[in-house]
Formats: sequence, C-alpha cells, structure tokens
Amino acid sequence: MAEKQPNGAGLRGQVAGKTALSTVGKSGSGLTYRGYDVKDLAENCQFEEVAHLILKGALPTQAELDAYKKKLKGLRGLPQALKEVLERIPKDAHPMDVMRTGCSMLGNLETETSFDQQQDATDRMLAAFPSIICYWYRYSHDGVRVETETDDDSIGAHFLHLLRGEKPNDLHEAVMHVSLILYAEHEFNASTFTARVCASTLSDLHSCITGAIGSLRGPLHGGANEAAMEMIENFKDPDDAEKGMLGMLERKEKIMGFGHAIYRESDPRNAIIKHWSEKLSRDVNGENLYNISVRCEEVMWREKKLFCNADFFHASAYHFMDIPTKLFTPIFVMSRLTGWAAHVFEQRADNRIIRPSAEYTGPELRKVTPIAERG
Amino acid sequence: MAEKQPNGAGLRGQVAGKTALSTVGKSGSGLTYRGYDVKDLAENCQFEEVAHLILKGALPTQAELDAYKKKLKGLRGLPQALKEVLERIPKDAHPMDVMRTGCSMLGNLETETSFDQQQDATDRMLAAFPSIICYWYRYSHDGVRVETETDDDSIGAHFLHLLRGEKPNDLHEAVMHVSLILYAEHEFNASTFTARVCASTLSDLHSCITGAIGSLRGPLHGGANEAAMEMIENFKDPDDAEKGMLGMLERKEKIMGFGHAIYRESDPRNAIIKHWSEKLSRDVNGENLYNISVRCEEVMWREKKLFCNADFFHASAYHFMDIPTKLFTPIFVMSRLTGWAAHVFEQRADNRIIRPSAEYTGPELRKVTPIAERG
Repeated sequence: MAEKQPNGAGLRGQVAGKTALSTVGKSGSGLTYRGYDVKDLAENCQFEEVAHLILKGALPTQAELDAYKKKLKGLRGLPQALKEVLERIPKDAHPMDVMRTGCSMLGNLETETSFDQQQDATDRMLAAFPSIICYWYRYSHDGVRVETETDDDSIGAHFLHLLRGEKPNDLHEAVMHVSLILYAEHEFNASTFTARVCASTLSDLHSCITGAIGSLRGPLHGGANEAAMEMIENFKDPDDAEKGMLGMLERKEKIMGFGHAIYRESDPRNAIIKHWSEKLSRDVNGENLYNISVRCEEVMWREKKLFCNADFFHASAYHFMDIPTKLFTPIFVMSRLTGWAAHVFEQRADNRIIRPSAEYTGPELRKVTPIAERG
Repeated sequence: MAEKQPNGAGLRGQVAGKTALSTVGKSGSGLTYRGYDVKDLAENCQFEEVAHLILKGALPTQAELDAYKKKLKGLRGLPQALKEVLERIPKDAHPMDVMRTGCSMLGNLETETSFDQQQDATDRMLAAFPSIICYWYRYSHDGVRVETETDDDSIGAHFLHLLRGEKPNDLHEAVMHVSLILYAEHEFNASTFTARVCASTLSDLHSCITGAIGSLRGPLHGGANEAAMEMIENFKDPDDAEKGMLGMLERKEKIMGFGHAIYRESDPRNAIIKHWSEKLSRDVNGENLYNISVRCEEVMWREKKLFCNADFFHASAYHFMDIPTKLFTPIFVMSRLTGWAAHVFEQRADNRIIRPSAEYTGPELRKVTPIAERG
C-alpha cells in the first residue's frame, strides 16, 4: 500500500518494542498466540485456557484449568460502591463509556498498589467485566439489580446468563469460547499500544486498561461488528443485500467488517466465526441473515477484492444469540483484556518510558504582545 | 546518552507525528508554546490566555479573554450524578484515580458525540476538573459537600477557593497562573502521546483525556513534585538536607525532581517557579524549607551535574500555599489538559491510526497438546 502520509505517520512499520505474545500476518501462520495458531486454539480450547496461555505463558493442565476457573468464579461479585456508580450511568450512555468508567472505579476500590498484584488484578477484571456491563445494562434498561455471582462454568456463559436471565445452552457457550479466543490478542494494535504507553510510565493496571478501553471505543478500532450488524439488519434478503452494497460502493460509503491494516489476503479468524455463525443460524431459523452475510462477503470480494475480517460474521453470530448490538464491543473488551494485561506485564518486565519525538510545524520564536495591543 | 536498550525501545528519537504546539529543548529557546517562550508567557499572561493560545491558536484580545473567562466560570457546576459518584470514592483513593474516574464519568453524562463539540467539551473539563478533585477531597476528608460554582476570576483561584474554603490572595492566584502555564504543554510526552494514540482511533475526547490521566499517574511521569515534597519535608535544615542527600546518593536511591529526558543543561521552567517559591516563602515564614530546597539544588549540581526540573521548586511553592501533597499531580492534570486536548485536535485534523510494529521474541509455531496430555 502506498505511503500517502509523511514519514512517521501512524508509526506504521516502526518497531516500538518486543513481544512474545503473538504474531499477526506472518506468512504461513496468520495469527498465533505464543506460537499456537488461533485456529488450533479455537478448535481445541476453552477461552480460560487461552487466557491462561496468554497471561501465564503456557496452556494449563486440567488441574490448573480447574483451579483457574474456580478462582475466576469466585471473583464475579461487584463492590456495593461500584454498583451504585453503575446505577448512576444513564440508559443512553455509550456502553464503552460504561466499561471505561466501571474499570476506572474498580481501580479506586481495589487499587493495584504493587506489581506483584498484577495477575490477581487481571483475574479480578476478567471475572468482573461481564458483571459490570450486565449490571448496568439490566439496571438501566430493565430496572433489575442482577445478582452477578453465578456458578456458570465460563466467562462467556456468565455473561450470557446475566444478560438474558437464564443459563445459555451448550452451543451458545461454545460460541462464546470461540469468540473470546478470536479477539483475545492482536500484537501492537492501537488499544494495546495505549496500554503499553501507559504501562511505560509505571502506572497501575487499572489506568492501563481504562486507557485501552477508551482507544478500543474509537470507530477505526473496535465497533466494526456493531457497524456491520447495523448494515446487514437493514437488508431484506441476499438480493437486496447485493443491491444495497453495490449502491453503497457506488456512493463510496464506508463498509465496515472488511479488509485489515495488517492482513493482506484474508483474516484467519473469519472462517472460524463464519462456521459458528452458520451453525447458530440453523439453531434459530436465522438462515436469511446468514445468507445475507454470505452475499455481502461475495459482493465485496468480487467488486473490491476485500475479504471479511474477524468482525463481519461476529455480527450475525452475536445477533443469533440475542445479544443487543450495542454490547458487541464490550464483549471485545472482556476478551482483549487478556492481551492488554499480558502486554502490560511485558512492558513492565523490560521497561523504557515510551516518549517519541514530533516534527515541529508551528511558528518561529516570537514575543508576547501586550494584551491591549493585540487584535 | 548511550542507547542501552534495543532498537525501538521507548521510541526515543523516532518521529511519531507532527505538531505546531510546542518545541522542547530546541537550542536558544528551551520551551515554546506556538512560538512563545514559556518564560515570556509566564511573565506576561494569565493561564486562561495561554489555554486560549494552545487550544485556539492565538493569544486572546482583552475582549476575547473576558469572554473566555466568563464562559469557563459558567461551567464549574457538577452534575448531581457525578457528585454522587465522587461521594462513593473512598478517602484513601489515589487522587489521580479520582480524576480519571471523574473525567470518565463526565463522559457518560455529557458525551462528545461529534468532533464539532471538542472545544466546548474541553472548556467544560477545564472548568470542572478543579471542582471534581475538590468536591471529592472535601467530601471524603472533611465531610463537606462544597458548592463548586464560585465567581473566582481564574481556574487557579477557583481551585484554591474550593480547597481552602476562602478566596486566595493575589500572590497565590498569581502563582497558580504561573504554575498552570508552566505545566500546560510539553510535546509528545507519554501522557500526551497516550491521548494521541487514543484520538487516532477517532475515539471521543473523554476517552483520550481519561487515558492521558492514567499515564500521567505513573511515577516515571507525573508525581515527581509529590516525591520531591516527601523528601524535603523530612529535612530539618539545609545542613541536614546536604547530609541526607549525600546519603541517598551513596545508597544510589532515586531522587525525584532532577534531570530530564529531553533537556540537557537546564529546565527552563525551574528558574521561574523557583523565583515564585522564594516569594511565597517570605510570605509564610517558609524560608527554612526554601533554603533546604536551594541546598538540594546545589548538592545535586555539585555531585551529579543534575539540574532541577520543573517539579522540584513546585513542591515547596505548592506547600507554601497549603496544598496537600497528594493533590500536586491533579493540579498538573488541570493544566496539561490544555496540551492534551490541543494534541487531540491536531491528531483528528490529520489522522492516521497509530499502530506500530513489534519485534517478535516468542516461540515458533507449535501444535496444541490435548489437555489430558499436558504437564
């Protein structure tokens, strides 16, 4: 891709540090977490195994996994003061602002005062983030104060249970494992890099994660699956989708869920979530929306040679599980938290404060004019 | 300084973008904001003039300054929901966590929904940040719900008034102007760069500023004036300071408030705040603490050729104004907000998402072992 902007713009291609956590777009292995192909992980692991891998360096044994899940289960309750804060956030707030504020408030109540606490503080957030978003959502939308301490086996099941008031079936729990695995880690993307810049000042973990949530909120970063959903739900059927997409392309409108800043030929996560979206569609008579999504994929490839990224079939998959569109990006947070925290650990272990330079384009040295003479 | 870390560490010397806002350490003009020497600004301007310069590009006329101050005065009140959140943050919370949470909560209540609102959203924060920190501080420490809408002429006077319950005298208000001017902007430091990374995803202003506060919280970035205060208040007199410092140097303890990542010979802000610290010391019989500070400066220069940076004499200056040490860094936030926001405006005006690369140091591609076979 031609470099249109000045040297240094976006730091594209510039090495900003080291990581042992993932590779993105290395030939022959689209996306790997600590050497494991994401496809291999999504087929053979639960999300909690992958969180263990990313945060602690190795896939757990059965005993380690059991212990880790038990620990996480015990951390789902929210402090009373945090619940009271969430109750004061209006229904029409942006759910990512809720996540950002919930994380920041947790940092006041359970401050990380030493880096020795980083794994515990991360596990607490892993367990509590579904509680935070669902407590706010159910209170502001349904007037219900949900009990966040459930005995669900996994983070994904806990989330669906709180959201819908009943335990999810096995298929839905399995899809949540896959989805959380696919979104868990992606090298030096903008939100992760935000976390690392913050970590480089030796700030606390809640500051790093709060900052990362704020960056993921941006429409150029998170949120593409929400935008994809808003598009596909407006199409009546695949033919209408084709017509609609061609119109959007002609009007040069931005179509979300396609292409990628790093991947050039395909996004390795797409085939995986597409497969699960199809399975879910059969479960809930959602074939029309699934077929609309497939047609969108065909049109974009035919017309623009653009492939679906991880976000596109996530839209229909989440929709088939009755997840409100505006909660799609908070799920991303629940997952990517693993990558963010692991990058913070790495930054702390071999730190230098991240402080780049700027090219100055402003005025030359000048004298202050007395205020009476300005104008 | 020799490069000890691998290529790319800390992005030192790498250009990450353009700015017209400031120069740091350019020969002959230590620190300039839009071409004006910070010394010239500190001698001739109020902080609100400098905020106008940084945010809007030019020093204001008298009529513009009057209008700007009137606008800011009208924005000091806090929404009820925000007050109720602040009341739920415990007394022993880190004041920077309070600022981060207050800013994030404000973003839920007064969300920036379009970039057209960026100047108004910034002005709101400029006016409200002193209210946020003082409302929490007075409620948690004194049990008082302060009325944050005052008619004080300036941001600095508003802050001191809320904190101490009475209007400050002219000298204290003047020192607040100088202090807020000195801390207002400093190119691509870590907190500002955090704000720009977040802005590059096209996220909202509250996310950018919340992230920046989290980075400034780090002990390698903000907080040096607090650390300096904690050191100097332990010395009985200048001779005790000399003895104490020599001991710290011998034990290779970190001494905060000296040296700088960019400046090589002196920090242009030091002479300015030192002058005002001396003035304040005479006002409150604080000569001993001032003389202790001067001795520290002499010892560090003689022993290590390290000069005082902006933070060192800020410690005694704030202390002479009866500001609790733990609120020193939140004052930095009130000031640097101008630089952060102006950098967000710049990033938005000529954006490319900031997404650097990483050097991979992890394992090669490997297969997932079935869980029963791990161990």
